[in-house]
Amino acid sequence: MENFSSKLLQSAVEEFARLPGIGKKTALRLVLHLLKQDGEIMNRFSEALLKLHREVVYCRECYNISDSPVCEICSSPRRDNTMICVTEDIRDVIAIENTGQYHGLYHVLGGIISPIDGIGPADLNIEALEKRLQSNQEVREVILALSTTMEGDTTNFYLYKKIKPFNRKVTVIARGIAIGDELEYADEVTLGRSIIHRTEYDQKTIR
Amino acid sequence: MENFSSKLLQSAVEEFARLPGIGKKTALRLVLHLLKQDGEIMNRFSEALLKLHREVVYCRECYNISDSPVCEICSSPRRDNTMICVTEDIRDVIAIENTGQYHGLYHVLGGIISPIDGIGPADLNIEALEKRLQSNQEVREVILALSTTMEGDTTNFYLYKKIKPFNRKVTVIARGIAIGDELEYADEVTLGRSIIHRTEYDQKTIR
Repeated sequence: MENFSSKLLQSAVEEFARLPGIGKKTALRLVLHLLKQDGEIMNRFSEALLKLHREVVYCRECYNISDSPVCEICSSPRRDNTMICVTEDIRDVIAIENTGQYHGLYHVLGGIISPIDGIGPADLNIEALEKRLQSNQEVREVILALSTTMEGDTTNFYLYKKIKPFNRKVTVIARGIAIGDELEYADEVTLGRSIIHRTEYDQKTIR
Repeated sequence: MENFSSKLLQSAVEEFARLPGIGKKTALRLVLHLLKQDGEIMNRFSEALLKLHREVVYCRECYNISDSPVCEICSSPRRDNTMICVTEDIRDVIAIENTGQYHGLYHVLGGIISPIDGIGPADLNIEALEKRLQSNQEVREVILALSTTMEGDTTNFYLYKKIKPFNRKVTVIARGIAIGDELEYADEVTLGRSIIHRTEYDQKTIR
Protein backbone atom coordinates (compact mmCIF):
# COMPACT_ATOMS: atom_id res chain seq x y z
CA MET A 1 0.00 0.00 0.00
CA GLU A 2 2.61 2.49 -1.09
CA ASN A 3 0.94 4.18 -4.05
CA PHE A 4 -0.65 7.22 -2.48
CA SER A 5 -1.21 10.07 -4.88
CA SER A 6 -0.89 12.52 -2.01
CA LYS A 7 1.86 12.81 0.58
CA LEU A 8 -0.57 14.58 2.91
CA LEU A 9 -2.98 11.68 2.68
CA GLN A 10 -0.16 9.24 3.17
CA SER A 11 1.09 10.84 6.37
CA ALA A 12 -2.41 11.07 7.85
CA VAL A 13 -2.95 7.39 7.05
CA GLU A 14 0.40 6.46 8.57
CA GLU A 15 -0.48 8.25 11.82
CA PHE A 16 -3.77 6.38 12.05
CA ALA A 17 -2.09 3.07 11.21
CA ARG A 18 0.17 3.51 14.26
CA LEU A 19 -2.85 3.03 16.52
CA PRO A 20 -3.29 -0.45 18.01
CA GLY A 21 -5.47 -2.74 15.92
CA ILE A 22 -5.66 -0.30 13.00
CA GLY A 23 -4.12 -1.60 9.79
CA LYS A 24 -3.27 0.48 6.72
CA LYS A 25 -6.56 -0.34 4.98
CA THR A 26 -8.67 0.65 7.96
CA ALA A 27 -6.54 3.76 8.47
CA LEU A 28 -7.20 4.81 4.88
CA ARG A 29 -10.92 4.21 5.30
CA LEU A 30 -11.00 6.33 8.47
CA VAL A 31 -9.00 9.18 6.98
CA LEU A 32 -11.14 9.25 3.83
CA HIS A 33 -14.22 9.28 6.02
CA LEU A 34 -12.91 12.28 7.96
CA LEU A 35 -11.97 13.99 4.71
CA LYS A 36 -15.51 13.57 3.38
CA GLN A 37 -16.92 15.42 6.38
CA ASP A 38 -17.02 19.18 6.45
CA GLY A 39 -14.11 21.13 7.86
CA GLU A 40 -15.67 21.75 11.23
CA ILE A 41 -15.76 18.04 12.09
CA MET A 42 -12.12 17.56 11.15
CA ASN A 43 -11.12 20.58 13.24
CA ARG A 44 -13.19 19.36 16.16
CA PHE A 45 -11.56 15.94 15.95
CA SER A 46 -8.04 17.35 16.04
CA GLU A 47 -8.92 19.96 18.63
CA ALA A 48 -10.43 17.38 21.00
CA LEU A 49 -7.22 15.37 20.87
CA LEU A 50 -4.87 18.33 21.26
CA LYS A 51 -6.95 19.79 24.09
CA LEU A 52 -7.02 16.44 25.86
CA HIS A 53 -3.29 16.14 25.52
CA ARG A 54 -2.50 19.68 26.66
CA GLU A 55 -4.97 19.99 29.49
CA VAL A 56 -5.48 16.54 30.93
CA VAL A 57 -4.02 15.79 34.32
CA TYR A 58 -3.82 12.67 36.39
CA CYS A 59 -5.56 12.88 39.75
CA ARG A 60 -2.82 13.34 42.37
CA GLU A 61 -4.71 10.99 44.70
CA CYS A 62 -5.74 8.05 42.52
CA TYR A 63 -3.99 8.66 39.14
CA ASN A 64 -7.29 8.56 37.31
CA ILE A 65 -7.49 10.80 34.24
CA SER A 66 -8.97 14.08 35.38
CA ASP A 67 -9.73 17.65 34.38
CA SER A 68 -8.59 18.98 37.76
CA PRO A 69 -5.73 18.15 40.18
CA VAL A 70 -8.05 15.96 42.25
CA CYS A 71 -10.56 13.94 40.21
CA GLU A 72 -14.35 14.04 40.51
CA ILE A 73 -14.45 10.72 42.32
CA CYS A 74 -11.76 11.54 44.89
CA SER A 75 -13.27 14.95 45.61
CA SER A 76 -16.89 13.79 45.81
CA PRO A 77 -18.40 13.85 49.31
CA ARG A 78 -20.80 11.09 48.22
CA ARG A 79 -18.10 8.45 47.77
CA ASP A 80 -17.26 5.94 50.45
CA ASN A 81 -13.69 6.80 51.43
CA THR A 82 -13.23 3.67 53.56
CA MET A 83 -12.38 1.56 50.52
CA ILE A 84 -9.94 1.83 47.65
CA CYS A 85 -10.33 -0.29 44.53
CA VAL A 86 -7.02 -0.90 42.72
CA THR A 87 -7.28 -1.14 38.92
CA GLU A 88 -4.84 -1.55 36.08
CA ASP A 89 -6.00 1.45 34.08
CA ILE A 90 -8.77 3.95 33.64
CA ARG A 91 -10.76 1.64 31.37
CA ASP A 92 -11.34 -0.62 34.34
CA VAL A 93 -12.44 2.34 36.46
CA ILE A 94 -15.03 3.19 33.80
CA ALA A 95 -16.14 -0.44 33.59
CA ILE A 96 -16.60 -0.68 37.37
CA GLU A 97 -18.36 2.71 37.53
CA ASN A 98 -20.75 1.48 34.86
CA THR A 99 -21.82 -1.43 37.05
CA GLY A 100 -23.17 1.06 39.59
CA GLN A 101 -22.19 -1.42 42.32
CA TYR A 102 -19.18 0.38 43.79
CA HIS A 103 -19.16 3.70 45.58
CA GLY A 104 -15.68 3.79 47.06
CA LEU A 105 -12.46 5.35 45.78
CA TYR A 106 -10.00 4.04 43.19
CA HIS A 107 -6.29 3.72 42.68
CA VAL A 108 -5.08 3.39 39.10
CA LEU A 109 -1.79 1.48 38.85
CA GLY A 110 -1.15 2.51 35.26
CA GLY A 111 -0.30 -1.04 34.24
CA ILE A 112 0.35 -4.46 35.61
CA ILE A 113 3.57 -6.25 36.58
CA SER A 114 4.73 -8.00 33.41
CA PRO A 115 8.37 -9.02 33.14
CA ILE A 116 7.89 -9.97 29.46
CA ASP A 117 6.86 -6.40 28.65
CA GLY A 118 9.57 -5.03 30.93
CA ILE A 119 7.06 -3.59 33.40
CA GLY A 120 8.16 -3.89 37.00
CA PRO A 121 6.65 -2.59 40.27
CA ALA A 122 8.65 0.62 40.00
CA ASP A 123 6.81 1.52 36.78
CA LEU A 124 3.44 1.45 38.53
CA ASN A 125 1.78 3.81 41.02
CA ILE A 126 2.38 1.44 43.94
CA GLU A 127 4.43 3.72 46.18
CA ALA A 128 1.64 6.29 45.90
CA LEU A 129 -0.84 3.68 47.11
CA GLU A 130 1.33 2.97 50.15
CA LYS A 131 1.48 6.69 50.91
CA ARG A 132 -2.31 6.94 50.62
CA LEU A 133 -2.73 4.11 53.10
CA GLN A 134 -0.21 5.70 55.43
CA SER A 135 -1.89 9.10 55.46
CA ASN A 136 -5.54 8.00 55.26
CA GLN A 137 -6.39 5.99 58.33
CA GLU A 138 -10.06 5.88 57.30
CA VAL A 139 -9.33 3.44 54.46
CA ARG A 140 -10.28 0.04 55.84
CA GLU A 141 -10.34 -2.13 52.73
CA VAL A 142 -8.28 -2.39 49.57
CA ILE A 143 -10.03 -4.25 46.73
CA LEU A 144 -7.70 -5.67 44.10
CA ALA A 145 -9.61 -5.56 40.80
CA LEU A 146 -6.95 -6.71 38.35
CA SER A 147 -7.24 -9.07 35.40
CA THR A 148 -7.49 -12.75 36.29
CA THR A 149 -4.31 -13.49 34.36
CA MET A 150 -0.87 -14.60 35.46
CA GLU A 151 0.27 -10.96 35.43
CA GLY A 152 -2.77 -9.98 37.46
CA ASP A 153 -2.06 -12.71 40.01
CA THR A 154 1.58 -11.66 40.27
CA THR A 155 0.59 -8.04 40.79
CA ASN A 156 -2.05 -9.04 43.36
CA PHE A 157 0.58 -10.95 45.32
CA TYR A 158 3.07 -8.08 45.16
CA LEU A 159 0.42 -5.58 46.25
CA TYR A 160 -0.78 -7.85 49.05
CA LYS A 161 2.73 -7.97 50.50
CA LYS A 162 3.06 -4.19 50.26
CA ILE A 163 -0.34 -3.48 51.82
CA LYS A 164 -0.03 -6.03 54.65
CA PRO A 165 2.11 -3.81 56.95
CA PHE A 166 -0.70 -1.22 56.96
CA ASN A 167 -3.15 -3.69 58.54
CA ARG A 168 -6.05 -3.17 56.13
CA LYS A 169 -8.43 -5.74 54.78
CA VAL A 170 -7.30 -6.87 51.30
CA THR A 171 -9.89 -8.44 49.01
CA VAL A 172 -9.90 -9.54 45.37
CA ILE A 173 -12.86 -9.42 43.01
CA ALA A 174 -14.77 -12.70 42.78
CA ARG A 175 -13.68 -15.14 40.09
CA GLY A 176 -16.18 -17.60 38.79
CA ILE A 177 -18.57 -18.47 36.05
CA ALA A 178 -19.75 -15.37 34.20
CA ILE A 179 -23.47 -14.72 34.48
CA GLY A 180 -25.21 -16.21 31.46
CA ASP A 181 -22.39 -18.68 30.77
CA GLU A 182 -23.08 -22.38 30.39
CA LEU A 183 -21.08 -24.58 32.76
CA GLU A 184 -19.99 -27.07 30.13
CA TYR A 185 -18.12 -24.35 28.23
CA ALA A 186 -16.36 -22.89 31.27
CA ASP A 187 -12.65 -23.65 31.51
CA GLU A 188 -11.58 -26.11 34.19
CA VAL A 189 -9.57 -23.62 36.24
CA THR A 190 -12.46 -21.18 36.49
CA LEU A 191 -14.91 -23.94 37.25
CA GLY A 192 -12.61 -25.41 39.90
CA ARG A 193 -12.11 -22.05 41.58
CA SER A 194 -15.80 -21.29 41.46
CA ILE A 195 -16.45 -24.48 43.41
CA ILE A 196 -13.75 -23.75 45.98
CA HIS A 197 -14.95 -20.17 46.46
CA ARG A 198 -18.64 -21.03 46.46
CA THR A 199 -20.90 -18.60 48.31
CA GLU A 200 -23.97 -19.22 50.39
CA TYR A 201 -27.17 -19.15 48.38
CA ASP A 202 -28.93 -15.85 48.70
CA GLN A 203 -32.07 -15.16 46.70
CA LYS A 204 -31.31 -11.45 46.52
CA THR A 205 -27.83 -11.54 45.01
CA ILE A 206 -27.75 -14.80 43.07
CA ARG A 207 -29.91 -15.07 39.99
CA MET B 1 -20.25 4.12 28.90
CA GLU B 2 -21.14 7.46 30.39
CA ASN B 3 -18.97 7.59 33.48
CA PHE B 4 -15.89 9.41 32.28
CA SER B 5 -13.95 11.16 34.99
CA SER B 6 -12.74 13.73 32.48
CA LYS B 7 -14.79 15.81 30.04
CA LEU B 8 -11.69 16.20 27.86
CA LEU B 9 -11.28 12.47 27.63
CA GLN B 10 -14.96 12.05 26.94
CA SER B 11 -15.01 14.48 24.02
CA ALA B 12 -11.90 12.93 22.45
CA VAL B 13 -13.49 9.48 22.77
CA GLU B 14 -16.74 10.74 21.26
CA GLU B 15 -14.90 12.14 18.24
CA PHE B 16 -13.16 8.82 17.65
CA ALA B 17 -16.42 6.91 18.14
CA ARG B 18 -17.95 8.88 15.25
CA LEU B 19 -15.61 7.10 12.84
CA PRO B 20 -17.11 4.19 10.91
CA GLY B 21 -16.60 0.83 12.60
CA ILE B 22 -15.22 2.38 15.81
CA GLY B 23 -17.35 1.77 18.89
CA LYS B 24 -17.02 3.56 22.20
CA LYS B 25 -14.82 0.87 23.72
CA THR B 26 -12.39 0.90 20.81
CA ALA B 27 -12.43 4.70 20.78
CA LEU B 28 -11.44 4.77 24.44
CA ARG B 29 -8.65 2.27 23.80
CA LEU B 30 -7.29 4.38 20.91
CA VAL B 31 -7.47 7.66 22.84
CA LEU B 32 -5.76 6.13 25.89
CA HIS B 33 -3.08 4.74 23.61
CA LEU B 34 -2.45 8.18 22.12
CA LEU B 35 -2.42 9.70 25.59
CA LYS B 36 0.24 7.25 26.73
CA GLN B 37 2.56 8.36 23.93
CA ASP B 38 4.71 11.40 24.32
CA GLY B 39 3.38 14.79 23.28
CA GLU B 40 5.15 14.88 19.95
CA ILE B 41 3.23 11.88 18.65
CA MET B 42 -0.12 13.36 19.65
CA ASN B 43 0.78 16.66 18.00
CA ARG B 44 1.95 14.90 14.86
CA PHE B 45 -1.28 12.92 14.70
CA SER B 46 -3.45 16.03 14.93
CA GLU B 47 -1.18 18.04 12.65
CA ALA B 48 -1.25 15.38 9.93
CA LEU B 49 -5.03 15.46 9.91
CA LEU B 50 -5.36 19.24 9.98
CA LYS B 51 -2.71 19.66 7.29
CA LEU B 52 -4.43 17.08 5.11
CA HIS B 53 -7.72 18.84 5.57
CA ARG B 54 -6.37 22.34 4.91
CA GLU B 55 -4.04 21.60 2.04
CA VAL B 56 -5.46 18.63 0.18
CA VAL B 57 -6.96 19.27 -3.24
CA TYR B 58 -8.80 17.05 -5.65
CA CYS B 59 -7.11 16.70 -9.02
CA ARG B 60 -9.05 18.92 -11.44
CA GLU B 61 -8.70 16.25 -14.10
CA CYS B 62 -9.52 12.97 -12.36
CA TYR B 63 -10.74 14.00 -8.87
CA ASN B 64 -8.10 11.87 -7.22
CA ILE B 65 -6.82 13.21 -3.89
CA SER B 66 -3.75 15.24 -4.69
CA ASP B 67 -1.20 17.65 -3.27
CA SER B 68 -1.29 19.81 -6.40
CA PRO B 69 -4.04 21.02 -8.79
CA VAL B 70 -3.25 18.20 -11.21
CA CYS B 71 -2.33 14.90 -9.55
CA GLU B 72 0.88 12.94 -9.99
CA ILE B 73 -0.80 10.38 -12.22
CA CYS B 74 -2.50 12.86 -14.55
CA SER B 75 0.65 14.95 -14.88
CA SER B 76 3.04 12.02 -15.39
CA PRO B 77 4.46 11.71 -18.92
CA ARG B 78 4.91 7.98 -18.30
CA ARG B 79 1.19 7.22 -18.06
CA ASP B 80 -0.80 5.96 -21.04
CA ASN B 81 -3.30 8.75 -21.73
CA THR B 82 -5.31 6.70 -24.21
CA MET B 83 -7.28 5.04 -21.42
CA ILE B 84 -9.26 6.20 -18.42
CA CYS B 85 -10.19 3.82 -15.62
CA VAL B 86 -13.34 4.90 -13.77
CA THR B 87 -13.40 4.06 -10.04
CA GLU B 88 -15.77 4.68 -7.16
CA ASP B 89 -13.21 6.27 -4.86
CA ILE B 90 -9.53 6.77 -4.22
CA ARG B 91 -9.21 3.48 -2.35
CA ASP B 92 -9.88 1.67 -5.62
CA VAL B 93 -7.26 3.79 -7.38
CA ILE B 94 -4.73 2.73 -4.75
CA ALA B 95 -5.80 -0.92 -5.06
CA ILE B 96 -5.41 -0.88 -8.86
CA GLU B 97 -2.10 0.99 -8.66
CA ASN B 98 -0.86 -1.68 -6.27
CA THR B 99 -1.48 -4.40 -8.87
CA GLY B 100 1.10 -2.76 -11.14
CA GLN B 101 -1.02 -3.89 -14.10
CA TYR B 102 -2.46 -0.57 -15.20
CA HIS B 103 -0.61 2.41 -16.56
CA GLY B 104 -3.40 4.61 -17.87
CA LEU B 105 -5.29 7.48 -16.25
CA TYR B 106 -8.14 7.41 -13.72
CA HIS B 107 -11.43 9.12 -13.11
CA VAL B 108 -12.74 9.04 -9.54
CA LEU B 109 -16.55 9.23 -9.40
CA GLY B 110 -16.63 9.98 -5.68
CA GLY B 111 -19.32 7.37 -5.10
CA ILE B 112 -21.71 5.07 -6.86
CA ILE B 113 -25.36 5.48 -7.90
CA SER B 114 -27.38 4.26 -4.93
CA PRO B 115 -31.01 5.38 -4.64
CA ILE B 116 -31.25 3.86 -1.15
CA ASP B 117 -28.46 6.13 0.08
CA GLY B 118 -29.88 9.04 -1.89
CA ILE B 119 -26.91 9.18 -4.27
CA GLY B 120 -27.87 10.01 -7.83
CA PRO B 121 -25.77 10.68 -10.96
CA ALA B 122 -25.69 14.41 -10.19
CA ASP B 123 -23.78 13.71 -6.96
CA LEU B 124 -20.94 12.02 -8.86
CA ASN B 125 -18.18 13.40 -11.08
CA ILE B 126 -19.87 12.15 -14.25
CA GLU B 127 -20.26 15.45 -16.11
CA ALA B 128 -16.55 16.02 -15.62
CA LEU B 129 -15.87 12.64 -17.26
CA GLU B 130 -17.96 13.65 -20.26
CA LYS B 131 -16.02 16.91 -20.52
CA ARG B 132 -12.73 15.00 -20.37
CA LEU B 133 -13.85 12.75 -23.22
CA GLN B 134 -15.02 15.75 -25.23
CA SER B 135 -11.76 17.65 -24.88
CA ASN B 136 -9.31 14.71 -24.99
CA GLN B 137 -9.59 12.97 -28.33
CA GLU B 138 -6.61 10.75 -27.50
CA VAL B 139 -8.66 8.78 -24.96
CA ARG B 140 -9.70 5.62 -26.79
CA GLU B 141 -10.94 3.38 -23.99
CA VAL B 142 -12.89 3.88 -20.79
CA ILE B 143 -12.55 1.02 -18.30
CA LEU B 144 -15.36 0.78 -15.77
CA ALA B 145 -13.82 -0.61 -12.58
CA LEU B 146 -16.75 -0.43 -10.17
CA SER B 147 -17.90 -2.93 -7.58
CA THR B 148 -19.68 -5.98 -8.93
CA THR B 149 -22.81 -5.11 -6.97
CA MET B 150 -26.26 -4.00 -8.05
CA GLU B 151 -25.22 -0.36 -7.50
CA GLY B 152 -22.07 -0.96 -9.53
CA ASP B 153 -24.07 -2.48 -12.36
CA THR B 154 -26.54 0.42 -12.33
CA THR B 155 -23.71 2.93 -12.43
CA ASN B 156 -21.96 0.99 -15.21
CA PHE B 157 -25.13 1.11 -17.29
CA TYR B 158 -25.62 4.82 -16.68
CA LEU B 159 -22.01 5.58 -17.54
CA TYR B 160 -22.17 3.41 -20.66
CA LYS B 161 -25.12 5.44 -21.97
CA LYS B 162 -23.32 8.70 -21.19
CA ILE B 163 -20.05 7.63 -22.82
CA LYS B 164 -21.61 6.08 -25.92
CA PRO B 165 -22.10 9.39 -27.83
CA PHE B 166 -18.33 9.98 -27.63
CA ASN B 167 -17.61 6.82 -29.60
CA ARG B 168 -15.00 5.33 -27.29
CA LYS B 169 -14.45 1.73 -26.39
CA VAL B 170 -16.13 0.95 -23.04
CA THR B 171 -14.90 -2.08 -21.08
CA VAL B 172 -15.61 -3.46 -17.62
CA ILE B 173 -13.16 -5.30 -15.40
CA ALA B 174 -13.37 -9.07 -15.70
CA ARG B 175 -15.69 -10.84 -13.31
CA GLY B 176 -15.06 -14.43 -12.46
CA ILE B 177 -13.62 -16.83 -9.98
CA ALA B 178 -10.99 -15.18 -7.80
CA ILE B 179 -7.53 -16.65 -8.20
CA GLY B 180 -6.98 -19.25 -5.50
CA ASP B 181 -10.72 -19.86 -5.00
CA GLU B 182 -12.18 -23.33 -5.15
CA LEU B 183 -14.99 -23.74 -7.66
CA GLU B 184 -17.36 -25.52 -5.34
CA TYR B 185 -17.43 -22.53 -3.00
CA ALA B 186 -18.03 -19.93 -5.72
CA ASP B 187 -21.53 -18.48 -5.83
CA GLU B 188 -23.71 -19.53 -8.76
CA VAL B 189 -23.96 -16.08 -10.36
CA THR B 190 -20.20 -15.63 -10.43
CA LEU B 191 -19.65 -19.16 -11.69
CA GLY B 192 -22.32 -18.72 -14.38
CA ARG B 193 -20.81 -15.45 -15.56
CA SER B 194 -17.33 -16.89 -15.56
CA ILE B 195 -18.50 -19.59 -17.97
CA ILE B 196 -20.28 -17.14 -20.25
CA HIS B 197 -17.28 -14.78 -20.31
CA ARG B 198 -14.68 -17.53 -20.62
CA THR B 199 -11.43 -16.49 -22.26
CA GLU B 200 -9.14 -18.39 -24.58
CA TYR B 201 -6.49 -20.38 -22.75
CA ASP B 202 -3.18 -18.57 -22.72
CA GLN B 203 -0.24 -20.02 -20.83
CA LYS B 204 1.15 -16.57 -20.15
CA THR B 205 -1.84 -14.95 -18.47
CA ILE B 206 -3.74 -17.87 -16.97
CA ARG B 207 -2.19 -19.71 -14.09
